[in-house]
Amino acid sequence: MTVALGADARAPGARTRSLLAELRIALPAGAVLTDDESLRERAFDAKGGPADGVPIAVVRPVTTAHVSAVARIAYAHGTPLVPQGAMSGLAGGANTVDGAILIDFGAMNAIVRIDAVDQVAVVQPGVVTETLALAVAEQGLFYPPDPASSTVSTIGGNIATNAGGMRCVKYGVTGDFVRSLEIVLADGRIVRTSAPTVKVVAGLDLTSLVVGSEGTLAIVTEATLALLAAPGETQGVCATFATSADALAAANAIMASPRRPSTLEFLDGVVLAAIAAYLPDSGLPAGAHALLLALTDSRDGGADDVAAYERIVREHSALVVDVATDPVRLDGLLAARRAFNSAIRAVRGGSIDEDIAVPRTRLPELLERLDALSVEVGLPIGTGGHVGDGNLHPGICYDPADPAQLEAAEFAHSRILALAAELGGTVTGEHGIGVEKLEALDVELGPTVRELQWAIKAAFDPTGILNPGKKL
Amino acid sequence: MTVALGADARAPGARTRSLLAELRIALPAGAVLTDDESLRERAFDAKGGPADGVPIAVVRPVTTAHVSAVARIAYAHGTPLVPQGAMSGLAGGANTVDGAILIDFGAMNAIVRIDAVDQVAVVQPGVVTETLALAVAEQGLFYPPDPASSTVSTIGGNIATNAGGMRCVKYGVTGDFVRSLEIVLADGRIVRTSAPTVKVVAGLDLTSLVVGSEGTLAIVTEATLALLAAPGETQGVCATFATSADALAAANAIMASPRRPSTLEFLDGVVLAAIAAYLPDSGLPAGAHALLLALTDSRDGGADDVAAYERIVREHSALVVDVATDPVRLDGLLAARRAFNSAIRAVRGGSIDEDIAVPRTRLPELLERLDALSVEVGLPIGTGGHVGDGNLHPGICYDPADPAQLEAAEFAHSRILALAAELGGTVTGEHGIGVEKLEALDVELGPTVRELQWAIKAAFDPTGILNPGKKL
Repeated sequence: MTVALGADARAPGARTRSLLAELRIALPAGAVLTDDESLRERAFDAKGGPADGVPIAVVRPVTTAHVSAVARIAYAHGTPLVPQGAMSGLAGGANTVDGAILIDFGAMNAIVRIDAVDQVAVVQPGVVTETLALAVAEQGLFYPPDPASSTVSTIGGNIATNAGGMRCVKYGVTGDFVRSLEIVLADGRIVRTSAPTVKVVAGLDLTSLVVGSEGTLAIVTEATLALLAAPGETQGVCATFATSADALAAANAIMASPRRPSTLEFLDGVVLAAIAAYLPDSGLPAGAHALLLALTDSRDGGADDVAAYERIVREHSALVVDVATDPVRLDGLLAARRAFNSAIRAVRGGSIDEDIAVPRTRLPELLERLDALSVEVGLPIGTGGHVGDGNLHPGICYDPADPAQLEAAEFAHSRILALAAELGGTVTGEHGIGVEKLEALDVELGPTVRELQWAIKAAFDPTGILNPGKKL
Repeated sequence: MTVALGADARAPGARTRSLLAELRIALPAGAVLTDDESLRERAFDAKGGPADGVPIAVVRPVTTAHVSAVARIAYAHGTPLVPQGAMSGLAGGANTVDGAILIDFGAMNAIVRIDAVDQVAVVQPGVVTETLALAVAEQGLFYPPDPASSTVSTIGGNIATNAGGMRCVKYGVTGDFVRSLEIVLADGRIVRTSAPTVKVVAGLDLTSLVVGSEGTLAIVTEATLALLAAPGETQGVCATFATSADALAAANAIMASPRRPSTLEFLDGVVLAAIAAYLPDSGLPAGAHALLLALTDSRDGGADDVAAYERIVREHSALVVDVATDPVRLDGLLAARRAFNSAIRAVRGGSIDEDIAVPRTRLPELLERLDALSVEVGLPIGTGGHVGDGNLHPGICYDPADPAQLEAAEFAHSRILALAAELGGTVTGEHGIGVEKLEALDVELGPTVRELQWAIKAAFDPTGILNPGKKL
């Protein structure tokens, strides 16, 4: 009886049936999915659930015209739209919204064009980041943004979150490589944000506004991305230190030098121990209290870069200095670094993964305060990440079976967000706001900027159907 | 009698007297100017007049609180506000608006802080671009954006227009170096657009939205700018060609190589002849049909860069190839390049200076079409500029005393703007819209994007007092 009631309660009403019929007419056969499994598969992203309610359908458009048709139908019905990529986001930005149409861009994954003279790639949003990176590399070109999820994440998702990665320290974030976007507005109109020229100051910068807006302003259906010529071979230094303070001082000295690294990653002792346990053959030095990985991809002077990094880390009391030029060895080190979150989670079974950024000058104080917080709450906090950008990912480790630890972890979480603000930083450097950090966002922005953001949202999406409850 | 009537007509009414009294109370002694000479001096920018009406006053704030007070007063009175820097803009963006308060940022020119570890400079908007560049250079740092006006233009003006320059081809435009802004809203509220961290995705990207908005969304009162470590010495190749097509092919080959130049400028035969006449001792080769200046500032491999540029220009049939490493010689070449507009104007006394950008692949067609247009209208069109960015400045030369030539020049002007669109480009790469290109902007953006822009404008400035009649 209960089951039957439940099924009844979720059986589509007349309005929903009409909506679904319209979608089926507008889209190719099989592109409108309403079965429970399809809906459940797209419920929430890598942050984990629960999702906020039950969606109406998953649609799988193939063309911009399909997306436009979906938006027109949704707009007419006042139905929420949630654009979704690989569901690899870390803030719930692509999570289901109750009563929504989920737009799965998996079938809109074409690389439309790669132009070596203009150094651009024109792509659909569903193309996987690494697929694009490999395709342009075949032509001697380079798409630098490299979020840790790049083997699965999509360009559309990278644009929605303005995704970062390990190479940002030299090349910048995803938005720095977005030259122009084709977008579908809430009511289905299709526009381009700007001419795809290197420089353009005709009109307000809608491209940058849509980048990082997590699907709340418009739906990206095509992107013109800037490319560079292929860099040199990657090589670098992996150094351990007796204290985080030494490692941070070395990192800041490397950043202040003229030899900008292509990757500059920091891992503290908690993270190193976790990775050593999680991936025993990673090749990362075990038992150290802090580690720096400083890489260069310079075509000229790469060996001089490495020599400079080696000199700098030694000047800052490095313990073991490993000069790494072998690609296999480097891949192993980077893979170990990417295993950071999984390793941290394995320490006690659960972790809350932060994504704060502060000015580099405040990094030593940040690490001291995190250590003190760890002692205060009685939980390990493992910290590492993109130290050259001041963007670190403290992970608060807790036992999910112990309610007291979960409570302590949540207390530490709120303290870390407040700490980022106190040190002149931000609660999210690259993961986004999603559904996770809405309260912290309001504190960071203050009421006036919050009001401005909502007014901009209303300018794009007056009826509020685009990914409601996210980002703002 | 006529004189007395004129003076009467401009004597302030009761409302204006009240407004001026409020401004005088809010600002330091001498910071509110209403004399004719002060108003006339700030009437229009380097595009030339006429200005659109007579302003009420020029105010010279010293602090953000002053600017906030001016905005509060203006907002209460419904009085337009026009932020002004050095009046060196080229599109009328800082021109007087009838009945407006002009905000002269000349006294808000402090370099608040330069931080070598965070690699940032915090500055007030009135600081002159070159003053900042020299100040950071003293600390071994580098502020790359270098608009041709940098000895007089201000950072506030550079931000308002998202100014470009010759180094953009390697480093990007002004906006790429703006990390965070303090802005005053139309009603006087003071906010920061974001945390000043290298990476931040908390909230929509208001920083990029304000950059390039020409004072129509908010008034910038402080900027946190990103800096780099000082580059290497500048050196390069100056090469002449028998045709523009050869020079453009060489330029595109240089851009497609892995050795990105720090400057890549093109000048055609009309420009070269004009510069030769205008600056006989410039050191630029005279009598050539086209010229490329390819410079590098690499710290490592600079000599290899120069060798590569030399090889590439020779492969593209360069006639005279001059390898320039002497700083004095290079300064002379760059100064001659910067004299471009004045030289072009001297050809016949007048010129209409364009600022179009197209994808690099379309450059050869652009130059062919400009040549054909020159023949069609019977006027010289001299073209040069930032060829690596696809951003060229055709100058249509005409005799201001000949109405037929002026008419032909205006016809050619509209044809060039249409040509930019036809080739997938934009009517303005770096100078901005100002009052000059409002119609062309509407054509380029189309009605939907135009509508979006106005809705964003309304979100920031609901009563429309910020630099009305500009940019949008």
